[in-house]
Amino acid sequence: MTLNIIKVGGGIVEKEENLNLLLNDFSLLQGPKLLVHGGGRLATTLATQMGIETHMIGGRRVTDADMLRVVTMVYGGLVNKRIVAQLQARGINALGLTGADCNVIRSHRRQEGNWGFVGDVDRCDGEMLATLIRQGITPVVAPLTHDGNGQLLNTNADTIASEVAKSLATHFDVTLTFCFEKKGVLRDCNDDDSVIAHISAADFCLLREQGIVADGMVPKLENALNACRAGVKRVVITRADQLGQQDSGTVVTLE
Amino acid sequence: MTLNIIKVGGGIVEKEENLNLLLNDFSLLQGPKLLVHGGGRLATTLATQMGIETHMIGGRRVTDADMLRVVTMVYGGLVNKRIVAQLQARGINALGLTGADCNVIRSHRRQEGNWGFVGDVDRCDGEMLATLIRQGITPVVAPLTHDGNGQLLNTNADTIASEVAKSLATHFDVTLTFCFEKKGVLRDCNDDDSVIAHISAADFCLLREQGIVADGMVPKLENALNACRAGVKRVVITRADQLGQQDSGTVVTLE
Repeated sequence: MTLNIIKVGGGIVEKEENLNLLLNDFSLLQGPKLLVHGGGRLATTLATQMGIETHMIGGRRVTDADMLRVVTMVYGGLVNKRIVAQLQARGINALGLTGADCNVIRSHRRQEGNWGFVGDVDRCDGEMLATLIRQGITPVVAPLTHDGNGQLLNTNADTIASEVAKSLATHFDVTLTFCFEKKGVLRDCNDDDSVIAHISAADFCLLREQGIVADGMVPKLENALNACRAGVKRVVITRADQLGQQDSGTVVTLE
Repeated sequence: MTLNIIKVGGGIVEKEENLNLLLNDFSLLQGPKLLVHGGGRLATTLATQMGIETHMIGGRRVTDADMLRVVTMVYGGLVNKRIVAQLQARGINALGLTGADCNVIRSHRRQEGNWGFVGDVDRCDGEMLATLIRQGITPVVAPLTHDGNGQLLNTNADTIASEVAKSLATHFDVTLTFCFEKKGVLRDCNDDDSVIAHISAADFCLLREQGIVADGMVPKLENALNACRAGVKRVVITRADQLGQQDSGTVVTLE
């Protein structure tokens, strides 16, 4: 049975209108599904309102104790519960989860760098998630994990999506879709319609050599191919408003 | 099988030290269990930090749109997820829930008064909660519900505890314990050790007539007896630090 795992980022979550459109499309997807969300700038906005400074290293957020409180409130509370309530209104039996809930995602605090309370994933309990999904529940996963010793940790939402997808690959035929600001991986970054419909592992090699795939897209595609190597059937990179459409975006598979 | 439902209020939740002691005792309770928590002054503190005014009518908080955001963050995020992570560290497979999650508690927005986004409970899905509990999961319920149309609503934690207990009464022998600032219902409100060990419906009648039970204790005991009438085996009113102890507090039963 196919399981659709959709990851939406901060840009969609920040604007209620965009989020509601996405949730319309998500709720129309047939069969079992799971949503992973980020929180984006909503956390920065709340931190500012609270007079908490946002510390950055190389453009990335440092999660000190204050910021951990903020992201726990924003990702685990505000964003997650809003999505859950909106999905319930669309007839989807949503259940909001952080990695601590049902112990679904264990992580350890990152040692390298001074990132603060950032967690790198150790394991995701696909069995528990599959049990919930088979009961007709749609998990909605916030980008928070825990270390098993009572410590919540901030974890990248893309990573959560990949780890969740991999852990469920033995239970379902998983399609993992990353909603993205572009329509897919572009052959020409100045032409929004130059979407590459399909990328295999061999294609990726070539596209990278040719410089067509570069910068931030390289780790994204590496992650996608790693997910495929771990049993995920296919990874789709598409724009949020194209979610419901057939053959939209770039499909990544091993072969 | 006995199911222990424990309700803890804001006073316990506000101080990490008190909360951790409570969670130690809670985790030692044998058999299936469920925790309902309030949030208390933590919401007011955050609102103040955010520059949001707290409006009160007759000493009770009005939940306007801004305050709903705050309680969603504090109750649904910060408090709920901290408890879940701390219970996981104690070997309890906790799952944080609002009423929107798995559609467990539906409510409607209160029409009387100008309370804002306050929900009065319509129904609690005991079947769903029982299914989770039978899987070895310990639900941790935040005082938030939803109206089924996408609207989250702020709901009194005592009410949540009673409704959850009643909905589970056909599935388990439910003991509902309210943790309270006193050791129980006192015969003499100036003597902390004058706890009345047991109150039946008939006792309550008499105690109220005699003026021994008065003020805020009257609705508390009425709620307790109503829960018993709806099938809850017994209601216990005790101090949080006495939770693990046999024969502590006041036991309320019909007869």
